[in-house]
Amino acid sequence: MSSATDRDEFIAVVEDRLRGVGKLVRRSMLDALPEGEPAQWLYTPMREYPARPGKALRPALCMSAGRAFGADADDLLGLAVAIELLHNAFLVHDDIADGSEMRRGRPTLSAAYGVAAALNAGDGLAVVAGQVLRRAVRRLDRDLADLIWAEFDTMAMRTLEGQATEVGWRLDSVDNLVPEDYLNLIMHKTCWYTTIHPLRVGAIVGSGGTVELGPLVRFGFHFGAAFQIRDDLLNLVGDEETYGKEILGDLYEGKRTLPLVHLLSVADDADKTLVRQFLNLSRPQRSPEMVRTVRAMMDHYGSIAFTAEFAEGILLVAEEYFEQAFADAQPGPDLDFLRALVPYVWARWR
Amino acid sequence: MSSATDRDEFIAVVEDRLRGVGKLVRRSMLDALPEGEPAQWLYTPMREYPARPGKALRPALCMSAGRAFGADADDLLGLAVAIELLHNAFLVHDDIADGSEMRRGRPTLSAAYGVAAALNAGDGLAVVAGQVLRRAVRRLDRDLADLIWAEFDTMAMRTLEGQATEVGWRLDSVDNLVPEDYLNLIMHKTCWYTTIHPLRVGAIVGSGGTVELGPLVRFGFHFGAAFQIRDDLLNLVGDEETYGKEILGDLYEGKRTLPLVHLLSVADDADKTLVRQFLNLSRPQRSPEMVRTVRAMMDHYGSIAFTAEFAEGILLVAEEYFEQAFADAQPGPDLDFLRALVPYVWARWR
Repeated sequence: MSSATDRDEFIAVVEDRLRGVGKLVRRSMLDALPEGEPAQWLYTPMREYPARPGKALRPALCMSAGRAFGADADDLLGLAVAIELLHNAFLVHDDIADGSEMRRGRPTLSAAYGVAAALNAGDGLAVVAGQVLRRAVRRLDRDLADLIWAEFDTMAMRTLEGQATEVGWRLDSVDNLVPEDYLNLIMHKTCWYTTIHPLRVGAIVGSGGTVELGPLVRFGFHFGAAFQIRDDLLNLVGDEETYGKEILGDLYEGKRTLPLVHLLSVADDADKTLVRQFLNLSRPQRSPEMVRTVRAMMDHYGSIAFTAEFAEGILLVAEEYFEQAFADAQPGPDLDFLRALVPYVWARWR
Repeated sequence: MSSATDRDEFIAVVEDRLRGVGKLVRRSMLDALPEGEPAQWLYTPMREYPARPGKALRPALCMSAGRAFGADADDLLGLAVAIELLHNAFLVHDDIADGSEMRRGRPTLSAAYGVAAALNAGDGLAVVAGQVLRRAVRRLDRDLADLIWAEFDTMAMRTLEGQATEVGWRLDSVDNLVPEDYLNLIMHKTCWYTTIHPLRVGAIVGSGGTVELGPLVRFGFHFGAAFQIRDDLLNLVGDEETYGKEILGDLYEGKRTLPLVHLLSVADDADKTLVRQFLNLSRPQRSPEMVRTVRAMMDHYGSIAFTAEFAEGILLVAEEYFEQAFADAQPGPDLDFLRALVPYVWARWR
């Protein structure tokens, strides 16, 4: 990419494809969600997040990897829809756990309906995800179906482990973390279900269960880590309307992101004490002024620049692993799209 | 049952069998729950409710109904364990939604670990329940396995519908309910997963999918309704140590139970206004004194006596439906136990 125009064009091509997958998967999700009573307190809230346009990264990874490894598109759609429905279920529960206020540009379910109704809606989305998955694996032979189910179980537990670790860090006021702790967290919390799982599921179906999973995990981890770190940065420097979540929300929530981990390790003693005191407060106690102060420290101590460099290094490793992970895949538009996603996650603003 | 001694002996026989099933199922649940990291914030909380002795009514219904319809005990245990694990997952999320403080004689997960960690632990229990269920249905042929999965999906959605309806009543300050509304609520919230589902699952496996489900649903509904109404009464008149939950907890939570529905329909205008004002408060605003006042009104207006009579009528209907529901079942200790459960739920104190 030699010029800004090339770069814009490249982003447009990737986003075009993501939009296409998003539209298809969104329609399928809404078709799978039942209508019924109580509409107001269950079935309407269940449709809210699936109806809001998301990035569709996970289903796009699953379907492209699957086709690149030789799968029939019809065998992939249900799996991709199940992944996206489960993602929506996670989002609903995460927003409760984090006390978040905005999701995809609108109020979170817990903000709009209260914790109890949001909790039920999240559980309901997980049940429907299971139904969709069951229909999807009925197309496969029983051993392959069992393999795919085991993938979903592993993914769900990895994600919960990551969530629980992060909750524990906050409740235990942990403030002596190093970047490796952060990477270990997002391996569980984000990478497994965002990148590794969709790639593995697609590749397993495409190869009939023969694909070598190690390289896919290594690629998926680095790719997913770059994705998450970009998300952490967008939360600090992004534009709320494009980003869709509240800017600086991670600071209000006291999330141990990479910029915060860096800040805690390099700030002088007085500033470190200030940040620790800030982290020991509860969310409602953290004022906009305090949040702005911590945010300004991140500029002062170079935490934003450090994070950007760190992620660019990870992205280079991801590009190297890409060729190993897809050595046995078929060249073509699916593989091209997957390759283009790697620089794309770093260029995205939403 | 002609004397108090007979009655005590009959209760002891039923409880002995429930204890036996409970021990077996509890051990199987704990075996199925993985150990791992983060222990403190995920895997330890996940084990808490399954390790606390519960009533084991649901697995006992599934296993006894299954054997009475001719199933092999080995084909039933996994299904019963999945039912009980899912029940534990529901309890964890319910206790968050209700803001409850005690469960099985000890602090709720949300009280002990906070909402975020409890949320994850509940999700984790549901994932493990799914794993156990998948292993269990692998013993069945694929069509029967699909039928059993559909039963679990239906049950989960019915339960969420009931939960959501109850949440909506509270958030909308609904106070013009009649007993039929209450029965419709507990049909969804309690009866489906407590009695109807375990009976159906057992009977479907035992009969190879040929059992007639209508009579089982009718019996299960009346039996389950009596069980739930007894629970509502124990919450008002029980002994905290035996009962295991906080006495009067339903009043603190503003639950629309049958005694409350009755009170709202018969109290004079001044008292009705008082109760409505009480229901419009948030949980922390409801003082012990207010709760005692509402509780005393229930005695004054005969709401406790009305509820007991109402439940006894339902129990008689359940006994009639019992013979229809199990007309094709084999006589023997399993059928005897199921028959004895009907009067037992009304005699229980825990």
